[in-house]
Parts: sequence; C-alpha cells; structure tokens
Amino acid sequence: MAGSLKGNMLIAQSGGPSMVINQSLAGAIIEAKKHKQIKNIYGSLHGIKGVLEEKMIDLRKESNAVLEAVAHTPSSALGSVRKKPTSEECTKIFSILQRYDVRYFFYIGGNDSAETVNIISEESRKDNYDLHCFHIPKTIDNDLLENDHTPGYGSAARFVACAVMGDNLDNLALKGVKIDIIMGRHAGFLTAASALAKVHPDDGPHLIYVPERPFSMEKFCEDVKNVYDRLGRCIVAVSEGISDEYGIAIATKFIKETDSHGNVQLSGTGALGDLLSGEVKSKLQISRVRADTFGYLQRSFPGIASQTDAKEARAVGIEAVKMAAGGEPQGSIAIRRKPGKKYQVYFEHVPLQSVAKNTRHMPDEFINSAGNNITDAFLKYAKPLVGDLPKIGRFKAVAVKKQ
Amino acid sequence: MAGSLKGNMLIAQSGGPSMVINQSLAGAIIEAKKHKQIKNIYGSLHGIKGVLEEKMIDLRKESNAVLEAVAHTPSSALGSVRKKPTSEECTKIFSILQRYDVRYFFYIGGNDSAETVNIISEESRKDNYDLHCFHIPKTIDNDLLENDHTPGYGSAARFVACAVMGDNLDNLALKGVKIDIIMGRHAGFLTAASALAKVHPDDGPHLIYVPERPFSMEKFCEDVKNVYDRLGRCIVAVSEGISDEYGIAIATKFIKETDSHGNVQLSGTGALGDLLSGEVKSKLQISRVRADTFGYLQRSFPGIASQTDAKEARAVGIEAVKMAAGGEPQGSIAIRRKPGKKYQVYFEHVPLQSVAKNTRHMPDEFINSAGNNITDAFLKYAKPLVGDLPKIGRFKAVAVKKQ
Repeated sequence: MAGSLKGNMLIAQSGGPSMVINQSLAGAIIEAKKHKQIKNIYGSLHGIKGVLEEKMIDLRKESNAVLEAVAHTPSSALGSVRKKPTSEECTKIFSILQRYDVRYFFYIGGNDSAETVNIISEESRKDNYDLHCFHIPKTIDNDLLENDHTPGYGSAARFVACAVMGDNLDNLALKGVKIDIIMGRHAGFLTAASALAKVHPDDGPHLIYVPERPFSMEKFCEDVKNVYDRLGRCIVAVSEGISDEYGIAIATKFIKETDSHGNVQLSGTGALGDLLSGEVKSKLQISRVRADTFGYLQRSFPGIASQTDAKEARAVGIEAVKMAAGGEPQGSIAIRRKPGKKYQVYFEHVPLQSVAKNTRHMPDEFINSAGNNITDAFLKYAKPLVGDLPKIGRFKAVAVKKQ
Repeated sequence: MAGSLKGNMLIAQSGGPSMVINQSLAGAIIEAKKHKQIKNIYGSLHGIKGVLEEKMIDLRKESNAVLEAVAHTPSSALGSVRKKPTSEECTKIFSILQRYDVRYFFYIGGNDSAETVNIISEESRKDNYDLHCFHIPKTIDNDLLENDHTPGYGSAARFVACAVMGDNLDNLALKGVKIDIIMGRHAGFLTAASALAKVHPDDGPHLIYVPERPFSMEKFCEDVKNVYDRLGRCIVAVSEGISDEYGIAIATKFIKETDSHGNVQLSGTGALGDLLSGEVKSKLQISRVRADTFGYLQRSFPGIASQTDAKEARAVGIEAVKMAAGGEPQGSIAIRRKPGKKYQVYFEHVPLQSVAKNTRHMPDEFINSAGNNITDAFLKYAKPLVGDLPKIGRFKAVAVKKQ
C-alpha cells in the first residue's frame, strides 16, 4: 500500500502565526505536486474551522511565484484558529473529508494543533477511514517535545534579540529601569533569547525571568536594585508567563479571558509590564521606569526572519509530505541537532502522541542558579538558530581631562 | 572673520534617541576634521549635563572604522538628556565652554533641544563670547517647523509601517480588533505612517487617530463597529497623544510623570491601549480585542533604518559644521523638498528661533474629513522617506466548490 493511496490532500494552519509558517505550507504544497497519488491540494481556511464550514481553496491554482511570495510573508496565509474539536465535530470533519476524498491531511501548528491532529487520526482509525495525518511543527515558544527547536522560534528570537539590543542602546542614552515583556506562556526560550542582545559586558538584559522558575516580587525588586545601584540603569526581560510559587501566572490576577484550550490571554495587553514598573517605582523610588510589551510584533514582523529558521520551516513541510506519501499513516516531523561544533540538523519522523498536548521547558542547564538570568549553554544553543545580528558600534570614549 | 575663528568644537545629543541620530554625529565629526580652525573635537556625555559636569570625550581619538560603526548604530552614542538649562546653568555652561576654548557648539535634537541651543546662543551674545551655536535636527515625531521632514522620522515610520504590516497579516489569520499605540505627543506623522502598511484594499490599518483631531470615545467605538461589521476585523492605529475636545490627552488621565520641559510620560506604559481595548470589549461585546504599544522599539530597533533617512541625517550633520566653520554665528539646518515628481531634497540654513520650542502639526490635507484616517496626499509625502517595504504575498484563493 505504501505510496499507492490515491486521493486529495488537505492542509491547514492552526494556533499563533509565525514569521515562517508559510514556508512550511509552501514546502508541503511544492512537495505534494511531485507525488502522483496526490490529486487535488486543498487549503482549509482558518484551520479545522474551514473544514467544518467547507471553506477551502484550491492550492493547485496558485502559481509558483505566488507560492514563493507567500512563503516569505509572515503569518498564516490560510488563516488560523484556536479550536479544539469536540468528538461531535470530529465525526463531522471525517464525513466532510470522505466526501472530498481527502487521504492526506496536514496541520501546521504547535502542541495544541498536534493534539487536534492526533484526535482526528484516532477518529479516522475508529471510523476505518484510511487517512494519512501529519502534524507539521510550528511554535515561536519553542516548547514542542521531541524537537531540538521548532520552526518559528529562530525568527521570533531574532526579533526579541534585536529589540532588546536597541532597547539597551536607548537605555544607555537615557538611563533608567526598562522592563520588556516577552511572549512565552510556559516556556522561557523566547524570553531567554533577549540575552543574545548582549555585546559588551555592561549591556542589558541584566536580568531575565522565565516561567520555569517561581517569580517573587520581592526578589525581583531586590535584583533590580542591585543592578541599578551598580550601573545606574537596568534592563529586565520578563516572560509573560511568569508565575508565583503556587504556579499561578502573575498576569492572571489581572486578565480573565481564555480560549477553548483553557489558555489565559497573556498577550495583547500591557498590564503585566505596568504592574512590574509600578512596583519598581514605588518600592525602589526610581523615577524613570518604563515597560514595553513586545506583543504580536514578535511573531509577525516582516523582513527580519532568521534564514536558518526559514530554511528549516520549509524542510519540515517537505518532510511531512514525503512521509505521508511514502505510506506513513501518522506522525510529526521533529528537528534534531547533530552533535559536533558545526550547527547541523536532521529531521525525524515521530508519532503524534509524542508531541501532542504537553510542552517542553527550558532545561535546568539553561537557567542560572539564582533563577534571574540564563547561562552560556543557552547562548551556545540559541545563536545558530537566530543568525548574525546587526553590528553595534560603540565609542572607545577617551575622557577629556578636566581643565 | 568668516572661517577664521580658531578653537575647539563641542557636540552633544539631546532628547529621544533615533535610529539615525549617530549618522548626524558622525557626519559632523568627519566634516569638522576638514576644517583647520577646529582644533579639539569634544563629545559631551548626556547633552548639556556632560558640559555642566565636565564629562566629555575626545572624538579625535575615535578611528574612522568606529565612527562608521557608530553611525550605523541606533540611539545616541554620546548619551542623551531631557533637560532645559536654567539661566544659572547657562552661565555655568559658558564659563566651562570658555575654559575649554570651545568656539563651535553643536546640539543634535528636536525642538526642545533647539530651544536649549537658542538659550545658550543668546547667553553667549550677552556675555560677548564668540560662539558658533548650531542645532542639528532630529526627531522621530517629524514635528520641527521649517522642515519638510526630520532625520529619524523616516526610519521610525519604516518600523511602524512594517509592524502594522505584520499586524495586519496576524489579524487576517486570527480575526478580531487590534489597537496599536504609536509614538507622537502632538503630531500624528508617525501614527499616519501606519497607512503605508496597506497593500490590498481590505488591509489595515482601517482607522487612524492622530492628535491633530479631537478624540471622542463614542465616535471611536462607532468607527470600530462599522469596520468590524463589514470585515469581521479591525486594525486601529492610535497616536499616544490623542486628546479630547478640550485638548486634554486621553492618556494623562492615567499617567502623572513629567520631564523638566513639562512633558507628560506617554511612552513606556500600556495604559492607553488597555483603556481603548477595554472600551471596545465592553461597549461592542467583541471578545477578541488586543492592544500593543509599540514603545521604544520605534526609535531604537537596529538593522531596519530607512536608507534615505540615514543619508539625510548624515548630511545635516555635515551641513551644520560647514555653516559654522564658514562663519555663521547660529542656526539650524532645515530639510526642504524640491518640487517635482522625483524625490529630491536640499538643505537650508534657518535661524534657531524659527525651529525652537514650537511644534509642527500634520497639515489638514493629510487628514480625512471624518478625522479617523489619513489621505493619499500623506502617502505620497511619506513613501520616499520610508523606502521600499517588504513584499507581501497573498493567495489568489480560488474557492473549492462544495461537494
């Protein structure tokens, strides 16, 4: 049977967009065209919502020029959705897939999306419907299990590193305390990437707080005071997902909205930054305290994608189609790093269950013992994913003798 | 006497940093080296604060390679300050300038900085001390009088246009209302630049609010509802400086801090965005409403400066030194645009008084009659300042027939 199952293909995108998620989409479409058993190539609009509503587009009608232009464009060109299908919806999805003679189903997204693919795959087995179900990895949070890193992370990390690089320069010119709130609900990888901004020893970020360590407001103020007393300024990178010792996110005390996966809205508000800057102002009596929440720019800013990230995102889309067309019933494509000095990766076929639902966290070796910064091991890990950053010039600054 | 006054030069940077303010600094230093009557070249750290504290560096000790690297680095390499000198401080500044044999004084900044140069120039005349005082224009707000546009604006505008471009794509994927808060205390030029993000007719920003028109919360909600009902989504660009019909900034109702020029802190907080998104959520019963405040990234993000902006910033630094070395006692360099289809500028020497203190606003022809968007005249004005933006791909999207 391998490679012989004839039918249509359906591909969709889910969850938060990234700068390179369309690379995976383009890679999958271009690869699919090489396999004769794949007939029509349907793109479902807004993930499984587009299946349920039968809103699909014909991706064979898109020229190569358009495919390439879309590949280089941030965000999800087919639209996205944050939706976990109910078992009733799953039944409906299969009847629709059958009606459209879909035999190859690809879903690009994070762990929530992998869970959705897994549910659909299981339902198809129960229904005895022969469907190749593949998850194509994407998450700027870098929190998928099995993966060394995930497509989307390198580019978002590049944005964060550049932003904090500029912020550090701004804060050198006009000193004070600057707090930057960075995306990352449960994993601190993206916040940690701020450390790549450091060029000179006194550069920020001076403190980095990730969700993997309990956040204490008192310890935070103490840390800021220590840096401020030493340098006259302090840049702090804070993950939106920081939580107290009971695991309760600091931001949830202020924000109530949740999506259908039960996730609280942490982005799209400046509340956490304002809370932290208010604390520093009042407790430490420092007048110039500012907070910026990087927000959606981290995953959608055009023109600055990491080239390594773009290339790998394309590759996982290609690999998934190759696997499915080769006869594999289900799975996901994991990115693994080869040991050795030179940065090299390979792609591995892993079962859906191994990446679905659960999230990966920063390993202990990436976080310092005080829990307020990252280690050199993280820098070594992250540098090749992000690529070369803009060059920063600084004066030698020979003091003029007082006259 | 023209060109014969021998002595030292002092240069400093003031006010909010920009992505290209160091281009002006490098231009001035490189030009100064060509004039034999200019002996030492001192860089004062953190504007006039560095003069008062006699904290200066020897800029002749910097290599050309360092000067070029600094030129391409965002933010103020000499440090900045937000300080209006008292008359007592001015007296002290002159005694220090005299002691250091400074005859050429250059201050790179906005209208507040021009006012500072003007005060120092007047004081020097009162004191009968022969000092060439020049202001070198810089402001991302684009609100200097006499100028077609100002160095720093094109690059910040480019950041804003790219950010909203990405935001529009993100919002196409996951629909809702998105509010972006953009810098600009009294002038809407930077917020207006968000309109450059539009590629397709349905692209955002769909609504643009600038400080030049009174902001009404009721009208704002009505506008958002109209767009949302039509497109199922709405992207809104809002200037941080929007004010009510009595001229009171909407943000000042929440934020109290001011600098020594009496300016209220509008940046470095997410309060305005959260206020507006809260209103939309509660009044319009729309669940997915997000707000991002672009913050300091607008003026400091490395690697994306407008090439036109960088070139012109370099040129005004060169021109100011040429004027001063040529014997002009005081002034500023204004950028004028030549009439005609092709974008071309020239530089004009204007008196300090003409750019000091007051701010320029968006001309009426740049704002639509409803006061909730900008006009094609603005787009025509702003495009050449920002340069080519990243290419955006979009599917032709041929619908699959329902089966």
